[in-house]
Amino acid sequence: MMPDALRVVVLGTGHMGCAISKLIRQKTGLELSGVYGRRPRPVPTDVGRAVGLGEEIGIHVSNDLDRLLTSTKPHVAIHATCSHLRHAIGEVRTLLRHGVNVISIAEEMAYPVRASPQLAGEIHRLALAHDVTVLGAGINPGFVLDLLVILLTGVCHHVESIAARRVNDLSPYGPTVLRSQGVGLTEKDFADGVDDGSIVGHVGFPQSMAMIADALGWRIDRIEESRAPIVAKTRREAPGVTVEPGLTAGCLHTARAYRDEKPVITLVHPQQVQPEREGVRTGDYIDITGEPDVHFAGSPEIPGGTGTAALAVNMIPRVLDAGPGLKTMAELPVPAAIMGDARRLVGDWPGAHE
Amino acid sequence: MMPDALRVVVLGTGHMGCAISKLIRQKTGLELSGVYGRRPRPVPTDVGRAVGLGEEIGIHVSNDLDRLLTSTKPHVAIHATCSHLRHAIGEVRTLLRHGVNVISIAEEMAYPVRASPQLAGEIHRLALAHDVTVLGAGINPGFVLDLLVILLTGVCHHVESIAARRVNDLSPYGPTVLRSQGVGLTEKDFADGVDDGSIVGHVGFPQSMAMIADALGWRIDRIEESRAPIVAKTRREAPGVTVEPGLTAGCLHTARAYRDEKPVITLVHPQQVQPEREGVRTGDYIDITGEPDVHFAGSPEIPGGTGTAALAVNMIPRVLDAGPGLKTMAELPVPAAIMGDARRLVGDWPGAHE
Repeated sequence: MMPDALRVVVLGTGHMGCAISKLIRQKTGLELSGVYGRRPRPVPTDVGRAVGLGEEIGIHVSNDLDRLLTSTKPHVAIHATCSHLRHAIGEVRTLLRHGVNVISIAEEMAYPVRASPQLAGEIHRLALAHDVTVLGAGINPGFVLDLLVILLTGVCHHVESIAARRVNDLSPYGPTVLRSQGVGLTEKDFADGVDDGSIVGHVGFPQSMAMIADALGWRIDRIEESRAPIVAKTRREAPGVTVEPGLTAGCLHTARAYRDEKPVITLVHPQQVQPEREGVRTGDYIDITGEPDVHFAGSPEIPGGTGTAALAVNMIPRVLDAGPGLKTMAELPVPAAIMGDARRLVGDWPGAHE
Repeated sequence: MMPDALRVVVLGTGHMGCAISKLIRQKTGLELSGVYGRRPRPVPTDVGRAVGLGEEIGIHVSNDLDRLLTSTKPHVAIHATCSHLRHAIGEVRTLLRHGVNVISIAEEMAYPVRASPQLAGEIHRLALAHDVTVLGAGINPGFVLDLLVILLTGVCHHVESIAARRVNDLSPYGPTVLRSQGVGLTEKDFADGVDDGSIVGHVGFPQSMAMIADALGWRIDRIEESRAPIVAKTRREAPGVTVEPGLTAGCLHTARAYRDEKPVITLVHPQQVQPEREGVRTGDYIDITGEPDVHFAGSPEIPGGTGTAALAVNMIPRVLDAGPGLKTMAELPVPAAIMGDARRLVGDWPGAHE
């Protein structure tokens, strides 16, 4: 007999939380049981209105996570409120104490040992104690520059070095993202922004590198990162910003992981508005030097926002099937688009539900 | 404390068995404990001589699998003696009864339910009873046209259809493979060969399609396959065969999986000698139509022979970590090149061995 729908709670009502909630509503076998928002709302707001479902669903956005979990008893929560482990830990603790499986799209949750071995250890122990699974998932980190790279090394007898590059277009993003990538500045202001930490570039390179190194069994000595301005030669535009020639169109963020003084992993992520104005094609590019060499590429790039929403939802059956504890994308079976009843995708072996 | 090396036995002394045995010898933490050959050898032959290690290792190739397993007590066996489930089942049964984990490169073992639900069920039950894991692994089926496809759908909200194409060069292969692909024939003889079953094309499309459909939750109504001649316009050559213009350079094998009368999965595998003579680039090409569309490609193609040997060995830590039973590549965490001590890659979570 088919069990009731898998109950899912979403934490976050921003761009990502909304996309995730909408997708859950579209999937057979999944039920959007509740939505948590960090900021209290002056008046009760229906989830349907808050996340843009196009209809009210008779549930209000909750500002009280404990109470939401007690009343909905979800199987799994998708956590989409922040990027950093230290900002996520409180909500993750609450979810685990309620015995809820967690999929977090916080960048640092892709490989939390990297940001804090202590907090990662706490999450792992709490997950074991409550017999649930915690996973960090996202396009980057979590997929293009790590999981896909790791998978492709699987065909190699030997790997000498890895280079991967993700070229994207910042035009769809809002002013906060554009600021963090240093769009529309003089080179001097860009350099100052890198120095004072306001221009951060990509969040996730150390996570991706640790995930790759851990999977292959490489011990990394050090990681070097650089953030260089991408100076526009032609005028470029995005909603709210115009970049004149000579100003910065974005940030070329590069990271190199060294082993015995040799760079063995190089990850490159130039993020800019309208790269096509100067003939730059967006895309994801993976080059493994080894035996054999492996080259794989996709263009345009896998979209970061919608891709991350899809990944988080598509990993629900994998997380429900996994053993308890803190896991990375490299430790669970690969995601797949949920195209049938999600309940039938949870199970032990092909044919388990026949 | 580090445990002793992981003991591995290889079944098969053909091209693949030799490549696998050599690779095991190169990996720290793995021990080649024995090699089984189906054909009795007139005189005892050292494994090193039989598989081309370049040195003798003091162990003879065994023709008695029961005895080999009793004396070596391996953790895992890599099975490389055949392509079909019905030819593999006897050896797989013996391995399981000895409590040995199995990685088989037999094409039909990639998704054995497809060839025989009865035998697949028997393998699953035997594996459960002896608390070991059975996995079918290989580049195709098992990686390029299924696992990689499944992984890439993971970023999709919705998948409309999937098309994947693998273009390779048959020149490195021997006369048996060239015959099975119908190289060097008239179109008439090619058609006759397809009719009488001597020209088989690729073994594995139904397996790849079932793996994809199962992962996504698609129910497939029927699969149609076609084998068409690739007629040479220019002279092409491979060891032992010359193809004059007008004769067949290989076989264009296509399979379509239908759902509600719509082709939802199309897999195309033209196999021919020297495709570059007519400007055809070898490569692997994946195109997913959905939300979003995903396009990924690699050129040249991931090499089938050496890639399969690598995959089989690189999956050893995954199989040792997996729960018992019959598994597919889509049910285990992704492979990674073993570049450190293989023993350190077996474990529960990142940091388990720190």
